[in-house]
Amino acid sequence: MAYDVIVLGGGPGGYMAAEKSGKAGLSTVCIEGRAYGGTCLNEGCIPTKALLYSGKMYLHAKEAAAFGVHAENVTIDNAAVIDRKNKVVKTLVSGVEATLKAHKVEMVKEYGKITGKTAEGYTVEAGGKTYEGKNLIIATGSVTSIIPIPGVKEGLASGYVLTNRELLDLKELPKKLVVLGGGVIGLEMATYYAMVGVETVIIEMLDHIAGTTDKDMSKELMKICGKMGMKFILGAKVTEVKGDRVVYEKDGQISEELTDKVLLSIGRRANTDGIGLETIGVETNRGAVVTDEFMKTNVPNVYAVGDVNAKIMLAHVAYREADVAVNTICGIPDRMRYDAVPSVIYTLPELSSVGETEESAKAKGLDVKVVRLPMIYSGRYLVENPGENGFMKLVFNKKYGTLIGAQFLCNYSSEFIATCAAFIEMEFTADDMKQVILPHPTVAEIIRDAASAY
Amino acid sequence: MAYDVIVLGGGPGGYMAAEKSGKAGLSTVCIEGRAYGGTCLNEGCIPTKALLYSGKMYLHAKEAAAFGVHAENVTIDNAAVIDRKNKVVKTLVSGVEATLKAHKVEMVKEYGKITGKTAEGYTVEAGGKTYEGKNLIIATGSVTSIIPIPGVKEGLASGYVLTNRELLDLKELPKKLVVLGGGVIGLEMATYYAMVGVETVIIEMLDHIAGTTDKDMSKELMKICGKMGMKFILGAKVTEVKGDRVVYEKDGQISEELTDKVLLSIGRRANTDGIGLETIGVETNRGAVVTDEFMKTNVPNVYAVGDVNAKIMLAHVAYREADVAVNTICGIPDRMRYDAVPSVIYTLPELSSVGETEESAKAKGLDVKVVRLPMIYSGRYLVENPGENGFMKLVFNKKYGTLIGAQFLCNYSSEFIATCAAFIEMEFTADDMKQVILPHPTVAEIIRDAASAY
Repeated sequence: MAYDVIVLGGGPGGYMAAEKSGKAGLSTVCIEGRAYGGTCLNEGCIPTKALLYSGKMYLHAKEAAAFGVHAENVTIDNAAVIDRKNKVVKTLVSGVEATLKAHKVEMVKEYGKITGKTAEGYTVEAGGKTYEGKNLIIATGSVTSIIPIPGVKEGLASGYVLTNRELLDLKELPKKLVVLGGGVIGLEMATYYAMVGVETVIIEMLDHIAGTTDKDMSKELMKICGKMGMKFILGAKVTEVKGDRVVYEKDGQISEELTDKVLLSIGRRANTDGIGLETIGVETNRGAVVTDEFMKTNVPNVYAVGDVNAKIMLAHVAYREADVAVNTICGIPDRMRYDAVPSVIYTLPELSSVGETEESAKAKGLDVKVVRLPMIYSGRYLVENPGENGFMKLVFNKKYGTLIGAQFLCNYSSEFIATCAAFIEMEFTADDMKQVILPHPTVAEIIRDAASAY
Repeated sequence: MAYDVIVLGGGPGGYMAAEKSGKAGLSTVCIEGRAYGGTCLNEGCIPTKALLYSGKMYLHAKEAAAFGVHAENVTIDNAAVIDRKNKVVKTLVSGVEATLKAHKVEMVKEYGKITGKTAEGYTVEAGGKTYEGKNLIIATGSVTSIIPIPGVKEGLASGYVLTNRELLDLKELPKKLVVLGGGVIGLEMATYYAMVGVETVIIEMLDHIAGTTDKDMSKELMKICGKMGMKFILGAKVTEVKGDRVVYEKDGQISEELTDKVLLSIGRRANTDGIGLETIGVETNRGAVVTDEFMKTNVPNVYAVGDVNAKIMLAHVAYREADVAVNTICGIPDRMRYDAVPSVIYTLPELSSVGETEESAKAKGLDVKVVRLPMIYSGRYLVENPGENGFMKLVFNKKYGTLIGAQFLCNYSSEFIATCAAFIEMEFTADDMKQVILPHPTVAEIIRDAASAY
């Protein structure tokens, strides 16, 4: 008998879709070949945060004198950090599995492949068995992009070049780490390694780090990371990875960095190889499944959520897309909007952003008014971050007076950026924002000050 | 010549009113006898948070082993903590004064007293000079309530009994501290003292701590504080303070606690003594100025904002009331609403609340649906708070499906409670809430999970 829903992949998009589907009373199977929780939980967001929190505890102990606290012989045991991370991941993966079970989702721990269309729906083969589903939700996620340059494949094979997956399991700290790519993953991993005293060099092709984030913030972040000991080589193209060094070209000059390990973090691409999309004719664009605002693909009753559609590769986008896909299957009106998606880089301090940046808004031809405040306007910030120069921006659409973007370079911002996401979602003006009472003393209350400064 | 606005008091309500008034182009004088920034900045919210952050750093260093970090001989230097606190306060007070100056507010550093009515408005005397204002904003704040029991006055005089003001300047840690009153101030101060190893006993008249907060949370908080070493004596009435002990009655039995110091934190009352309210006939109720939703008193053009009206004694309420008062003076439609006011107790972990609790909603006869989740549903929470049992509640009005309250017992909640305040303000249902994308991994994203569980 055909399942109501087959979910292909058990990462954030997949497990959330399966959970919602099961909760809605649909017979559901969720097929996952590697580990439930996907990249996010097993080798991405969560493990990184475990390392970063240990790193923070280490820095807190080392730098506590500024707060009247003294500690001697402060050391970090990286193997213990990794062990702890593994325990946390194990707990969370069990949690995901327990939730799926509670919602009567059948779990198949095998790699699945779409094999064809039937009268009832679609077939997926996994572990030698065939599953038939009336609806199919593709949620196979993404994989690390590999640069096609000499030495990278060999380096990956020998363990000299690592992706986030391997680096997160490296128990012995290298003396030096060269990070290829100054995007989110590169920056977060580099932050941990710099925190614990590893010489860290980031090589980035663009002339700035942190991707599409606000340019002023990316500059300030680079300064702060520099103070932590990170070295940045911008506008540089890696030309070869040898057994003990990375060779790169910058301004027409060839240079090299000797290093113990190399982290490959130049980006991620949709994971659609070998999953059988062609058997039912699912349209892709540069390898990513094409979806509409209902998460529908071009094939009836086939949906795609999460990194595999390459819209925005973030776990919380996948969650929301999963919601939309299942609601659509159930006939509940819903649609995906990408204009108030928060994103966070968990550096020290965090860099959080939602909606338009000053640059992206202007590039769209919008007339904007930007309010920029130094974070020291917040008393709590001043208390907890002596000597730091964080700042924040609110981006308003001048025509309507509505908030369309917000960025913060400060700790806790990951936790309160959603307040701005809500304001954008509601098309709030500065005056509307002022009516929402933010508690004192918090870092978040600077939002009120900024709205008042409009 | 008469000022447009005289602001009596320079605390959060007063300085914010003066700032807004100056910004609006009104000629403004702000009269403050003690220190700009008021209780909040000089001897309340901010200094407490400075101490608590030092305490947190101390605990982090001491308990870092759980995160793979080792530190030896961890000590805290309380005198250095107090010195640092004083520096932070000084910086922030200068900031307030600079802001007032920038908005062309005249500052008078004297105690002011209302002296009468004129054709143009009202007169206030300060430092031997008379100021005349068309509008008067009373923002004289609150003072510690003193219990009329034997020994308290003498204890205060001798320095055996302290209020938050004196305790925040105590450089030498006592061996033992007895705290009279288990409300916000008592709990926050006790948290710092317990953190740094002082034997701490809280005596509370009611059968629970943390005032009107959610009962389940107050119970769990008591458990957590107990693990930190705090001792609680509930349902007890203090009958006498002697030179070295506190005597109390509980269940008809008289007992006593020997102690080095006593903190008096049974509450605060509106500061209206001797400010001349009677000269112009301002109505009060139990010593607090009576105000309407425009912050108007019974006397034309006389307003009262902040603790002095005793509506909700919180700095962020004062800020908002200041906004409303100045808008009303300027003829800009605005009104104060108290149904989405967040409040935070900065214990370890923080306890944050906004809107109705389960109990308060039921007491109003509302039909409610409560969603309760353990905080370990959040991956970041699990990463950063091993072994903790925090939880959260969303309170919905069943009739309309709208969110009317939210409570969180976990760190960072102070920073994201405003997201729920915004949802309440917007009368959001669980379905509306689900459309707002919260970033992963955060503690705040549990709001999405809870909305999904509705």
